[in-house]
Amino acid sequence: MNNINYTMLCDFYELTMGNGYFKCGLKDKISYFDLFFRQIPDGGGFAIACGLEQIVDYISNLHFSDEDIKFLRNKNLFSEEFLNYLKTFKFTGDIYAVPEGTVVFPNEPIITVRAPAIEAQLIETFLLLTINHQTLIATKANRIVRAAEGRAVSEFGSRRAQGADAAIYGARAAGIGGCSSTACTVTDQLFGFPATGTMAHSWIQMFDDEYTAFKVYCECYPNSVTLLVDTYNVLKSGVPNAIKAFDNVLKPLGARPKGIRIDSGDITYLSKKARMMLDNAGYEDCKIIASNSLDEYLIRDMIFQGAKIDFFGVGERLITAKSHPVFGGVYKLSAVEDREGNIIPKIKISENVTKITVPHLKKLYRLYDRENNKAIADQLCVYDEIIDDTKDLTLFDPTFTWKKKKINNFKAVELLKPIFKNGKCVYDKPSYKEICNYAKAQVDTLWDEIKRFENPHVYYVDLSKKLWSVKNSLLDKNSVE
Amino acid sequence: MNNINYTMLCDFYELTMGNGYFKCGLKDKISYFDLFFRQIPDGGGFAIACGLEQIVDYISNLHFSDEDIKFLRNKNLFSEEFLNYLKTFKFTGDIYAVPEGTVVFPNEPIITVRAPAIEAQLIETFLLLTINHQTLIATKANRIVRAAEGRAVSEFGSRRAQGADAAIYGARAAGIGGCSSTACTVTDQLFGFPATGTMAHSWIQMFDDEYTAFKVYCECYPNSVTLLVDTYNVLKSGVPNAIKAFDNVLKPLGARPKGIRIDSGDITYLSKKARMMLDNAGYEDCKIIASNSLDEYLIRDMIFQGAKIDFFGVGERLITAKSHPVFGGVYKLSAVEDREGNIIPKIKISENVTKITVPHLKKLYRLYDRENNKAIADQLCVYDEIIDDTKDLTLFDPTFTWKKKKINNFKAVELLKPIFKNGKCVYDKPSYKEICNYAKAQVDTLWDEIKRFENPHVYYVDLSKKLWSVKNSLLDKNSVE
Repeated sequence: MNNINYTMLCDFYELTMGNGYFKCGLKDKISYFDLFFRQIPDGGGFAIACGLEQIVDYISNLHFSDEDIKFLRNKNLFSEEFLNYLKTFKFTGDIYAVPEGTVVFPNEPIITVRAPAIEAQLIETFLLLTINHQTLIATKANRIVRAAEGRAVSEFGSRRAQGADAAIYGARAAGIGGCSSTACTVTDQLFGFPATGTMAHSWIQMFDDEYTAFKVYCECYPNSVTLLVDTYNVLKSGVPNAIKAFDNVLKPLGARPKGIRIDSGDITYLSKKARMMLDNAGYEDCKIIASNSLDEYLIRDMIFQGAKIDFFGVGERLITAKSHPVFGGVYKLSAVEDREGNIIPKIKISENVTKITVPHLKKLYRLYDRENNKAIADQLCVYDEIIDDTKDLTLFDPTFTWKKKKINNFKAVELLKPIFKNGKCVYDKPSYKEICNYAKAQVDTLWDEIKRFENPHVYYVDLSKKLWSVKNSLLDKNSVE
Repeated sequence: MNNINYTMLCDFYELTMGNGYFKCGLKDKISYFDLFFRQIPDGGGFAIACGLEQIVDYISNLHFSDEDIKFLRNKNLFSEEFLNYLKTFKFTGDIYAVPEGTVVFPNEPIITVRAPAIEAQLIETFLLLTINHQTLIATKANRIVRAAEGRAVSEFGSRRAQGADAAIYGARAAGIGGCSSTACTVTDQLFGFPATGTMAHSWIQMFDDEYTAFKVYCECYPNSVTLLVDTYNVLKSGVPNAIKAFDNVLKPLGARPKGIRIDSGDITYLSKKARMMLDNAGYEDCKIIASNSLDEYLIRDMIFQGAKIDFFGVGERLITAKSHPVFGGVYKLSAVEDREGNIIPKIKISENVTKITVPHLKKLYRLYDRENNKAIADQLCVYDEIIDDTKDLTLFDPTFTWKKKKINNFKAVELLKPIFKNGKCVYDKPSYKEICNYAKAQVDTLWDEIKRFENPHVYYVDLSKKLWSVKNSLLDKNSVE
């Protein structure tokens, strides 16, 4: 199950369209596609872009094997010329993307692809599923981490993930979103996101009694002891036995326990009682870890009620983004080139107004206040526009155009970076640690009003006058009376 | 990203516990674990077990590479003896499981593992995530398929899946749940679940106008035409242009169109109007396909309102099981063997009563009515019990023990099949087609009362008297006063 050619992880229509483009002479038609999303999960104020590294690997490895070609030939749908073309298929276009960890908003490109039609079309599914998945989890993780108000959050969800990749890359994204560790060993191995973990209930059950289980564990790992205290009864059995094991095994060695973990029951109440028992026994430095179907709302509520928890283990509700498990990224044609290389903007109309796209090859600027480095707004421009941030700039709402805002003393930063140029990767992949730090710095550029859970401020993503005009003239031209 | 050793896809505590078992002499302690779940997603009446084939592959390939060992050594937590042991690690135990496609209910084992403690513990995460993911999607797919009342349902969700595996194996599970096709090419290649698909909006946008886009497509694939009709306006532009292309290109060739697809707007209304237009033009056999964030409730409502839809394409709400994206399977110790090979049942107590486990090595019987082949109830027995289905049997509720039911003229079928014996696979893997057919037959054994969406009948999963006694005496023994 581990030798899959991801080039074949495409929607079948990408191949039937590809064959069609090939047949009707559009195969080399240069096309521009934007990958963007329309809605922030959980009614949040922003998302954190994630997954680019896996896309770089995918694009670099695009190819059809002989077996793939054989499989396609047996469909009796594809011409031999097209199948022959697939034999040497590779990506020859350009890709621009915001770096992983960038804060992103609806209707702005996270990725822009410029490539011959077949190539641009074929990579649609993999690009979408990768960005949709990892951006979803990074965004969710950041919500949970913010709710924990500085307490550590560890990703514990592998067993409830939607498949192996969801566990592995979900944990990766959780770290970019701000989690400090994971339970997933292979994610540590692949990315250096530290894996931690101590014991399951089965460890305790494997011994004749809870105390023996604790004692043996303390003997095995005197410098790294976290005991799971809810197998029988947290306050009457778990915590007393833990203290006894700390006293009998660790104390003589001069070792200190790391923590206890509570995984069931009324954790807020239990944590307060357990804290007192630990403190009274001289283990003020022993942390209390909570797990059991937690999310940002439960964590916020536990903290509000004074729970004595130092560390949250968050599983299924993080690794599946349970409350909103779909990140609705889409991949839409924004322009084509004519034979002379002129860029012809394209729009997708829809009876659902929110599904209408922003046409053209675009630049994405983020405007930062020079005084406090906070993000003011994003502006989408036509590719050949330049924002001069030494001058005042008037922004306007693309729907209610009379809503205007003049800004000055700002810094305009272009967000889309070149990743592939003529099929060659031109991107210096940052380390995992760098991505995590960058994501944190990105979130720090947001006002608190955007970060809150309830009715967050809607961040402005405006269009330049020129882009607005392009969009509206295309709308006019393509509307059906 | 495609050469991952899934042996390392484990929770880190499985390794720390493994090292602990190794150190304290429990490494070869024979342990029994049950994989089961506690709650059916979406308040449904049953689930469809799925994912066993991937578990067989995983178990057969268990191993630690030199790099894995090196990575673990660098953690400074594991003894050299343990690391040395991992070098030749493989699974040597027994695994029993219900075949894929079996209808399953809460609190009964889907998988039972008998193995030395370290081995049984290490496979926990992968077994859980595989069963949790695929069972979730197969169960959800079956709900959607039932809502469609005989109309075809195709899986369209790859782009919104939680990673590549979620797309590939989610599509696999959707087919086992009853979908008739997928958009995911590689799932077809791997499992023979047919991939279909025609065009995206970008195909239409790539041409100067909608009619030309349709005409070219009809010329490319005269025998396999499904046109997407909502790029501009379904009734004023899409359907008329489709009919024009059918008339001008297909008719002269004697070809018939397969269908049109509507992906936005008020699909119920549009489908009725489109049906009339197609019928009036002589295309009564042209199917209407609907897509756009559908699920079982929307489909049921559309049918209730008289939508003229022949075929549903279902994406994000199926591939993520959006309304309930977690299948809460757990993996719990149920027994150990003493030195003489006696099986000692183990229970996990919890302050959450629903988290208390059913101890012991168990047999799982399904009791079918011999008259109509409908499932009456399941009974969990101690491993050495045999249900004699030539005699009457009295079932009783394990909580409200005075609730009894006497049954006769029934057939008792054991559901757990041997999959591995002493580390060797002893299971003849059924073909994908066989699994799909078996799942369909399984659902047919259920009364309609169990299949409905609202307040389904709770199917009985009872304990034999002997097993009930084992559980209650352990509860008594382990309760903390």
